[in-house]
Amino acid sequence: MERDTVLPCAGPVVNTYVAPGLHLLIDMHGAKNLRDQALIERALREAATACGATILDVKLHSFGEGAGITGVAILAESHISIHTWPETGFAAIDIFMCGGCDPHRAMPVLEAAFTPGRTSLSAHKRGEDLR
Amino acid sequence: MERDTVLPCAGPVVNTYVAPGLHLLIDMHGAKNLRDQALIERALREAATACGATILDVKLHSFGEGAGITGVAILAESHISIHTWPETGFAAIDIFMCGGCDPHRAMPVLEAAFTPGRTSLSAHKRGEDLR
Repeated sequence: MERDTVLPCAGPVVNTYVAPGLHLLIDMHGAKNLRDQALIERALREAATACGATILDVKLHSFGEGAGITGVAILAESHISIHTWPETGFAAIDIFMCGGCDPHRAMPVLEAAFTPGRTSLSAHKRGEDLR
Repeated sequence: MERDTVLPCAGPVVNTYVAPGLHLLIDMHGAKNLRDQALIERALREAATACGATILDVKLHSFGEGAGITGVAILAESHISIHTWPETGFAAIDIFMCGGCDPHRAMPVLEAAFTPGRTSLSAHKRGEDLR
């Protein structure tokens, strides 16, 4: 496998084939701590670090006392987002990482932070057929 | 169909069933304007508006002269993200919207902005089985 050059996100260009990355969609049910902005920010940062990603910015927005939180970690390797519905214990998370980072490595951090009763995960290769 | 209350994102709680939203993963191949930060910001804002969404913040990061751009529009109804690889004409976009917003309505705006040769789109219901 010959590697010609390196993308800004550290993704290898192998001959003429580029695989921009893997995108995980994660639905957590029966989750906790979904109103805790400080905990959510810490979880995003620790999840990114667990994957070996570089954090460029983290933005969070609270929808008010007792309501949900939206957070995005912008990474050199793409992003992690979280949207929470504390009233039903639901959190929708997505992790897109290009380059050598494996987004699955974020899962133990996120499971520890939100202790869901059940997690649904689907993985999607982005740009898989790019030539 | 009885509607009991309204979530912060304006998503209806119908009895005990909540449908947090629809998540589109969009891969654009042979796309243009992928280095143009002002155009990308405008496209994110116009895409959100086309869906009837409320923009809370828009963050963009350029990886330098000639390189790709990462952008996220944080919405009251969740988010739109874009990551571009201008060197190969590839853009990875995702749109997650809860409530009454239809993310498909962003597509004409995004296609007009980036004029891809080919677009792959997959749609994923988030929290579909939440009870």
